[in-house]
Amino acid sequence: MSARILDGKALSETIRDEIKSEVMLLKEKHGIVPGLAAILAGDNPASRIYVSKKAEACDQAGLHSETLTLPASTNQVELLDHIHRLNSDSRIHGILVQLPLPDHINENELLLSVSPEKDVDGFHPVNVGRMVIGKEKSFLPCTPLGIQTLLVRNGVETSGKHVVVIGRSNIVGKPMAIMMMQKAAGADATVTVCHSRTRNIADVIRLGDIVIAAMGKAQFVKADMIKPGAVVIDVGMNRIPDATKKSGTRLCGDVDYDAVKEVAGAITPVPGGVGPMTIAMLLSNTLKSAKNSL
Amino acid sequence: MSARILDGKALSETIRDEIKSEVMLLKEKHGIVPGLAAILAGDNPASRIYVSKKAEACDQAGLHSETLTLPASTNQVELLDHIHRLNSDSRIHGILVQLPLPDHINENELLLSVSPEKDVDGFHPVNVGRMVIGKEKSFLPCTPLGIQTLLVRNGVETSGKHVVVIGRSNIVGKPMAIMMMQKAAGADATVTVCHSRTRNIADVIRLGDIVIAAMGKAQFVKADMIKPGAVVIDVGMNRIPDATKKSGTRLCGDVDYDAVKEVAGAITPVPGGVGPMTIAMLLSNTLKSAKNSL
Repeated sequence: MSARILDGKALSETIRDEIKSEVMLLKEKHGIVPGLAAILAGDNPASRIYVSKKAEACDQAGLHSETLTLPASTNQVELLDHIHRLNSDSRIHGILVQLPLPDHINENELLLSVSPEKDVDGFHPVNVGRMVIGKEKSFLPCTPLGIQTLLVRNGVETSGKHVVVIGRSNIVGKPMAIMMMQKAAGADATVTVCHSRTRNIADVIRLGDIVIAAMGKAQFVKADMIKPGAVVIDVGMNRIPDATKKSGTRLCGDVDYDAVKEVAGAITPVPGGVGPMTIAMLLSNTLKSAKNSL
Repeated sequence: MSARILDGKALSETIRDEIKSEVMLLKEKHGIVPGLAAILAGDNPASRIYVSKKAEACDQAGLHSETLTLPASTNQVELLDHIHRLNSDSRIHGILVQLPLPDHINENELLLSVSPEKDVDGFHPVNVGRMVIGKEKSFLPCTPLGIQTLLVRNGVETSGKHVVVIGRSNIVGKPMAIMMMQKAAGADATVTVCHSRTRNIADVIRLGDIVIAAMGKAQFVKADMIKPGAVVIDVGMNRIPDATKKSGTRLCGDVDYDAVKEVAGAITPVPGGVGPMTIAMLLSNTLKSAKNSL
């Protein structure tokens, strides 16, 4: 029997509708429109697409959005000045610095300069620390939060389950692991983190009642690595050659989807799984920030 | 064959001697004596013993130490004032707020008020966040750092090994898991965190090449939960009844030591294992802070 498809696209639309209602209410009651500012430096085409998608999602949900498009030659001081200005702009509740930045920019210093209260990506050390300690006030990073929301809203029980996270990035793997081990709703799981150095990785992945693949290797997770009935979440976004496509390539995840869906109990597609949830969570965090500012 | 004993007491003395030499050098070269201030509010007898042990260790290693002993009636504002004063005192490089605090004190606000640059316990969200992200500048929390040091200095290979952490506290379990999964020396392990909600916990613990028991349940980890040859680290400090002792009690860990040492490859005793390493790391972090201040 084929796995149930966890449709992130459909759920993200539902959530964005919910956000839209809340945004209208906030405007009516308090005269506040949540605002997101994106900083885009240089001309990375993928970055430009991401940022325009985020701006479009803001518009649709009634949030204010602005994109600061800067040339690749912009220097550190100029970028810091822009962030400081946005930190003190009361119309802006979320600031997003699109990565990667041009090579001459000190990315770390820049991310640190974003006010933690407007850090809707959840990348600032203060927010990362609050997440570990388990503080309500932190912004949880959008991709792990989107995955947790996808699990919860699809009724996937996590308490006492074994969650295996593949990959240990600062954006997905590490925060995902921390969030799933917390004593909290939608969490309370036994958590294993495996990665490139893990021995017998197939055996480790096979422990998972829930497997979250986030190591950025096209179709790495095969059907024989999955415990029958497990829930498989695919965070990968890889381009692989495909002669049948006009572009000569197609998008695929870190999971060998066609084969794994015959073994798994539930699975996210790529695209249309985790990706749209990430954007919905960015809006959700911006709304949260606007509410915090009341 | 009985397990090799990982002697934390002996190693901690070696490390404290090394720190003593570095402190002398720092004084000679730069005229700086690393200083640790401990704040002790209320009259918890265990806390008083801990703080006096820490002060004694400072004295022996040539660090300056001062203990602020305050009555249980001290209020929040007074405590905050003391911390602010210590934050700006150039003779003090580390500030340690001994927990637990009296009930009427907002512990969280207090810990946040300690300057991250003097937070030698590594409890401030900024330092926790830096630890996750993997920044050099953070102070790593003393107990997990002591365990990692004990493993490294005893030549226990961690890269690619499966580390099972039992317990998910903010002081030990969570930071320990994060530290062991990092792409770094003395880490690079596959990491599993299990806890009270974990199903079939014996099977999960048996996965561990290295098992770190930190859930605070006397003698919970039994011999049949340990993979033969595994390295077992016992963080527990529990008092249990013992009619053969004058006090009627004795100290024991979270591991059933006598039975487990017949199965494990190496094991830490309680006392004399993790405890002394924790204090050595507190001195090490204070020395690091003094060097950072140069």
